[in-house]
Amino acid sequence: MQTRSNAVRLRAVAIAIALAVLSTAWAFAAEAQSTEDRDVLFQVSTIGALLEGVYDGPVTFGELHRHGDFGLGTFNRLDGEMIGFGGDFYQINAQGVANRVPDRWQTPFAVVTFFDTDQSAVIDRVRTYDDLQQLIEKTLPTPNICYAIKVTGQFDYVKARSVPAQQRPYPKLVEAIKDQSVFEFRNVRGTLVGFWMPEYMKGVNVAGYHLHFLDEDRTSGGHLLECRVREAVVEIDYTRSFYMVLPEQADFDAADLRSDKEKELHRVEK
Amino acid sequence: MQTRSNAVRLRAVAIAIALAVLSTAWAFAAEAQSTEDRDVLFQVSTIGALLEGVYDGPVTFGELHRHGDFGLGTFNRLDGEMIGFGGDFYQINAQGVANRVPDRWQTPFAVVTFFDTDQSAVIDRVRTYDDLQQLIEKTLPTPNICYAIKVTGQFDYVKARSVPAQQRPYPKLVEAIKDQSVFEFRNVRGTLVGFWMPEYMKGVNVAGYHLHFLDEDRTSGGHLLECRVREAVVEIDYTRSFYMVLPEQADFDAADLRSDKEKELHRVEK
Repeated sequence: MQTRSNAVRLRAVAIAIALAVLSTAWAFAAEAQSTEDRDVLFQVSTIGALLEGVYDGPVTFGELHRHGDFGLGTFNRLDGEMIGFGGDFYQINAQGVANRVPDRWQTPFAVVTFFDTDQSAVIDRVRTYDDLQQLIEKTLPTPNICYAIKVTGQFDYVKARSVPAQQRPYPKLVEAIKDQSVFEFRNVRGTLVGFWMPEYMKGVNVAGYHLHFLDEDRTSGGHLLECRVREAVVEIDYTRSFYMVLPEQADFDAADLRSDKEKELHRVEK
Repeated sequence: MQTRSNAVRLRAVAIAIALAVLSTAWAFAAEAQSTEDRDVLFQVSTIGALLEGVYDGPVTFGELHRHGDFGLGTFNRLDGEMIGFGGDFYQINAQGVANRVPDRWQTPFAVVTFFDTDQSAVIDRVRTYDDLQQLIEKTLPTPNICYAIKVTGQFDYVKARSVPAQQRPYPKLVEAIKDQSVFEFRNVRGTLVGFWMPEYMKGVNVAGYHLHFLDEDRTSGGHLLECRVREAVVEIDYTRSFYMVLPEQADFDAADLRSDKEKELHRVEK
């Protein structure tokens, strides 16, 4: 009986060790999630590289899922506008049609985060995209950090664009968008998804606003050019951590990222 | 015997589970180390905020240790020049004396990484800091990523500076460095520690070189102003990930980070 009792005790100790170690592993996993992902704006490459025609990147959407459930970007070959929303990534192709993005697809430029609302407000009858920008900007606590922005509601009007896939040798983005398609929506429910970045970030991302649109049915949308808001909820996620991964890739390494690209960026974004 | 044999088997299974789970926990820890820390340039705040006189920050050196064993920066109240080297952080105070930094001290601006040599070269008889910069720049595989740089050897001459702690209300950095002390070293062994950053990073860090000096005995050093190299080994760590954490702090939020600070930066760095 003594021997069996010892055996039971040993078994109990071994199981206790297993449980303790298992909970440690879970703690590691949980911390990895909370500290490294949720409050971090994760960016693939730079906007400057995209302007220079670096349209292929090594990061898959499967990997992007690990860094955020909300954001925007594009696809390899510049094949449309990307919107990350509610945990899914969508491609708005050159016909303005939204498709779920397979995990194996890759992106040359993307910005994502896990969206947690830090402030929200109801707005109505905002006549232009400019007015919307000013309205939101007034509510930001400081111009010195990054914000993820989500505007959900009823729009009288939305004007958005997308771009077709490009062929090598890739043209610069100012050239590529000459092929852009522009879509107009009237009386549409949907969501604007994107970011506001401080001016000092202009070397790596778009200073100020960059928003994409997805309609409520998740069937169409694009890069936002203009809008008129009937009624919407504006949600903002304060983001003080910025994590940028530069692609390990000959195209990126060879791109001329030195010149000031503000004028080109303005032509591309508006 | 059957019962005892079962007990032994159960014990063996329990121990096997414990070992499997333990190795999982180790794998988590190892991955956390390799993918999130070692290849990442970790930065506290922005150089622009430091120029504007944001001299207090919430990040301790205890926390900084988790993000790197190599780098540079400063201390709360701008109390000297910081060098991270060989796993330790040093303060070069206004008298030019190097002290080990206690974990509880805090920093308003720091850049660190875990240094892993990707390329190295022996150099000799480099007459000026400008010449050294050009010599290293020629060997960089691309101007589009960040590099950690370590130059270890014998120097005919080193000119370095440090700054005294400031009092609130804090002056801007261009004002504060009017109080700087300049130190000259002749025939000294030691190490230059720092970074080379792409031009597009100029909004958040110093574009080009930023190096600090620590002598071999780790007793003195400072922010590098000039040097003449007799013989040294240049080691370079390619860094394609950049992780910036902005302080959650009223001073930072209120600073004017919008204006172009290149001229001020040039006066402060040289």
